[in-house]
Amino acid sequence: MNICTYSYEEYLQLVKSFHGNLAPGLIIGGFIVDLALKHLPEGEFFDALCETPVCLPDAVQILTPCTIGNGWLTILDFGRFAVTMYEKKGGQGVRVYLDAKKLENWPEIRDWYLKRKKKHEQNLDLLLAQIKEAGHGLLGIQRVRLDPEKIRREKLGPVGLCPVCGEPYPVRDGERCRNCGGESPYTEIAVVETAG
Amino acid sequence: MNICTYSYEEYLQLVKSFHGNLAPGLIIGGFIVDLALKHLPEGEFFDALCETPVCLPDAVQILTPCTIGNGWLTILDFGRFAVTMYEKKGGQGVRVYLDAKKLENWPEIRDWYLKRKKKHEQNLDLLLAQIKEAGHGLLGIQRVRLDPEKIRREKLGPVGLCPVCGEPYPVRDGERCRNCGGESPYTEIAVVETAG
Repeated sequence: MNICTYSYEEYLQLVKSFHGNLAPGLIIGGFIVDLALKHLPEGEFFDALCETPVCLPDAVQILTPCTIGNGWLTILDFGRFAVTMYEKKGGQGVRVYLDAKKLENWPEIRDWYLKRKKKHEQNLDLLLAQIKEAGHGLLGIQRVRLDPEKIRREKLGPVGLCPVCGEPYPVRDGERCRNCGGESPYTEIAVVETAG
Repeated sequence: MNICTYSYEEYLQLVKSFHGNLAPGLIIGGFIVDLALKHLPEGEFFDALCETPVCLPDAVQILTPCTIGNGWLTILDFGRFAVTMYEKKGGQGVRVYLDAKKLENWPEIRDWYLKRKKKHEQNLDLLLAQIKEAGHGLLGIQRVRLDPEKIRREKLGPVGLCPVCGEPYPVRDGERCRNCGGESPYTEIAVVETAG
């Protein structure tokens, strides 16, 4: 049993190294990405879409060239456990998702995913064993087409200096940067003189 | 010259492998994360905040335990080239940013970052050479405190089955999932029978 070009055990090591722990969702995510890559439509360049920010984006980043920083991975906060790989211009692609009907065959996975058991009631060993045994068996596949324009990251455009903080920012955001325009998460700021 | 625990050359290899190409912003990002980690305040657990989705999140994901999938990395689309590492509960942290004043010492970096030169006018070799020579010299440091609640990812909460698509979704989103509630990027969907 492989996950893309890795053995199952190798993939678990990559998960631990990148993600910090053996998150069950990320192991399922490995099977999702593996199945999607096995069903790519025609095309040369594929981008990725995750329909949740939880766990799944790391499976994509570990197993494909698509990352958040290079813009080939888009994340929607739909809370559906699904990855779509799509041809970046035309939008034809394959979507692999967690199939609720198939969950019934794997009660420990079902109760964990649907939150029918509290954390202390879950059996982690059994959960991981069922995930490994299930493999692709939890998943559904759809041929899809999406509109790349709908999820494309806005271009940065011209850059100016914010008159408040003095830092470069995209002038599309208005007369000041979004931080200085009222969205700042910071409550205190003090310059340190040691830089440079 | 090191970037965290890696030599400069090792870091470039990691960038190529993870990000796909030697993006100048990601090399600067390496210096940003390196400088931030050298100035962490007291504390045991640190989360990361990137103020742009472009390039920088990959530096954080390569060099720290914080990833999008594990939730320890938050991205704001402020378009400022800055990373903050903060103590996850109290919010005290260090913010490292591209200092516009210091850019003046490195004209090729300045003209690239502020988009004063078109792509074909840029000298990539000179740009990369200036980035390596500048190192931390482009950067400013601030001691900050932020409000972790303001950037915390919303908890998934109870999970139900969407009456339209049949997939598990967070019931906080309403009577159907956000995809089926009108936000779908998909224009065509067809089930493939080969799964399982």
